[in-house]
Amino acid sequence: MNPEIQTWIEQLRAGDARALARAISVVENHSVGWSELLKAIFPYSGHARILGLTGQPGAGKSTLVDQLARYYRKEGLSIGIIAVDPTSPYTGGAILGDRIRMQEHSSDAGIYIRSMATRGSLGGLARTTADVSTILDASGRDLIMIETVGVGQDEVDIVRLADITVVILVPGMGDDVQTIKAGIMEIADIFVINKSDREGAERVEREIRALQSLAVRTDKWTPLIVKTVATEGTGIPELAGAIREYENHLQRENLALKRNIQNWQARLVEMLRDAMLEKARHQLGDGEMAQYAAEVAEHKRDPYTLIEEIVQGRRH
Amino acid sequence: MNPEIQTWIEQLRAGDARALARAISVVENHSVGWSELLKAIFPYSGHARILGLTGQPGAGKSTLVDQLARYYRKEGLSIGIIAVDPTSPYTGGAILGDRIRMQEHSSDAGIYIRSMATRGSLGGLARTTADVSTILDASGRDLIMIETVGVGQDEVDIVRLADITVVILVPGMGDDVQTIKAGIMEIADIFVINKSDREGAERVEREIRALQSLAVRTDKWTPLIVKTVATEGTGIPELAGAIREYENHLQRENLALKRNIQNWQARLVEMLRDAMLEKARHQLGDGEMAQYAAEVAEHKRDPYTLIEEIVQGRRH
Repeated sequence: MNPEIQTWIEQLRAGDARALARAISVVENHSVGWSELLKAIFPYSGHARILGLTGQPGAGKSTLVDQLARYYRKEGLSIGIIAVDPTSPYTGGAILGDRIRMQEHSSDAGIYIRSMATRGSLGGLARTTADVSTILDASGRDLIMIETVGVGQDEVDIVRLADITVVILVPGMGDDVQTIKAGIMEIADIFVINKSDREGAERVEREIRALQSLAVRTDKWTPLIVKTVATEGTGIPELAGAIREYENHLQRENLALKRNIQNWQARLVEMLRDAMLEKARHQLGDGEMAQYAAEVAEHKRDPYTLIEEIVQGRRH
Repeated sequence: MNPEIQTWIEQLRAGDARALARAISVVENHSVGWSELLKAIFPYSGHARILGLTGQPGAGKSTLVDQLARYYRKEGLSIGIIAVDPTSPYTGGAILGDRIRMQEHSSDAGIYIRSMATRGSLGGLARTTADVSTILDASGRDLIMIETVGVGQDEVDIVRLADITVVILVPGMGDDVQTIKAGIMEIADIFVINKSDREGAERVEREIRALQSLAVRTDKWTPLIVKTVATEGTGIPELAGAIREYENHLQRENLALKRNIQNWQARLVEMLRDAMLEKARHQLGDGEMAQYAAEVAEHKRDPYTLIEEIVQGRRH
């Protein structure tokens, strides 16, 4: 292996925050050496517990994650936080939020926070998040928390790489809440009703219960529901307790590895897809693609036949 | 061409709603013949105006789309609506919503509504939406409205296929609103502030203006802001006016084709990626992938090297 990369990894594993930050940036931006770095670092990963937390904007994710981080720090765990925020990089919103949150924990080297906002990155947000998580894992963090915004496929892909998935709801989030809940029923191991001092918390709980009666999980787990008021720290120990309970369930039923294998199966397919795309793009070149796009846009060529021909090697 | 497909397309183009519904289902589910159907139908597409509408859950998208549909129906346009809803299919929420909305317009053959909820479909939600849009287009609809929920990459991909993108905001949607707006600034041709009778509408407008001063569009267009109360029909003619103004801008600056070519360039790359993946999956087989996933999960194998070997053909 490249001795420079080896030194880098050693620094990173020794707790050097700058070496860690640089590694994350290289992987996030697919800078030179990113692939070599990941290959070299992978054997050191696999020890961290990965917690995925998801919920709508305004659900109070950041606050909840910060509170959980404080709780686990008191238990002596070292923590990495990845805040996935599919906003445009040019406004700098994510970076700003990052700095504000980092300041609060700046005296504590046991918490490392990184925001990700790489919409449209080569490998996609889910893929990049997974790679960054691998690096944090290899750096020796005990617990990695990944928080995501939104309710789209991205989010599902991102939380799929977690060992434990927490879905955060709040009372009174509008008429489509029912719909959202339906969409995330399958991925939630634990539900948090945050801002539970608001009116409607009981109704949210009833709705979750009602939807649960429709869903059948193959792993014999009925997702727990925890009520919190994250801004006041209320319910945080209970949430940590629910997480522990699910961990015990995974262990008891021998499900952790099984879930991990399933996750990797999905991730490998995604990685394969990305790699194939890169290969295809390389073969075709941007100019040729632009030419084809113009022909299709002007309806001189049907795109479905075109792609078939390219894949079969009959074109270019 | 397959004479059966030819007949099918003729029925569909003659306004047969069942032929249309069947075509959409075949494409959505990648049922036998989907690819052949798309190839055959593509030459008939390219005439419809495609309007993308996006906004958070609770922003009132459906109501706004319904109101716009009524408005355009009075102008004599035939309309197709694709409601993209990344919720789980098993709860049937999307199908239910579909039926409720269809009932309202059931006496009017000039409006066709279809909900899409095919999370995890082979080609991804964006790809499938594009294909369904092509079918609606070929069926002779003058205007296709695509409404999407969420703020993830999916949403961006979906609205990218639209000629005109409308982003719907509402006052008082929580502390993360700023962040969301930043993320969608680049894709909005028109902003709608719906539920604008609520407190905070002016502030939302000011925030949009502030963010606009940061963004630079290459097409010399400053996105218009329209205030609506969709439930009462307030602001709908103004929204239609803003849409018309943007259309005029596209025409004046000769941007419509340019935008279309850009869209197709992105779509072709996605289609190529999907096709390559399918080929790779076919070559590998599910069993082998499961085996690899187990080895990676147990850290016996590094996934980055593995994928490289597969793509290079060094691992069969």
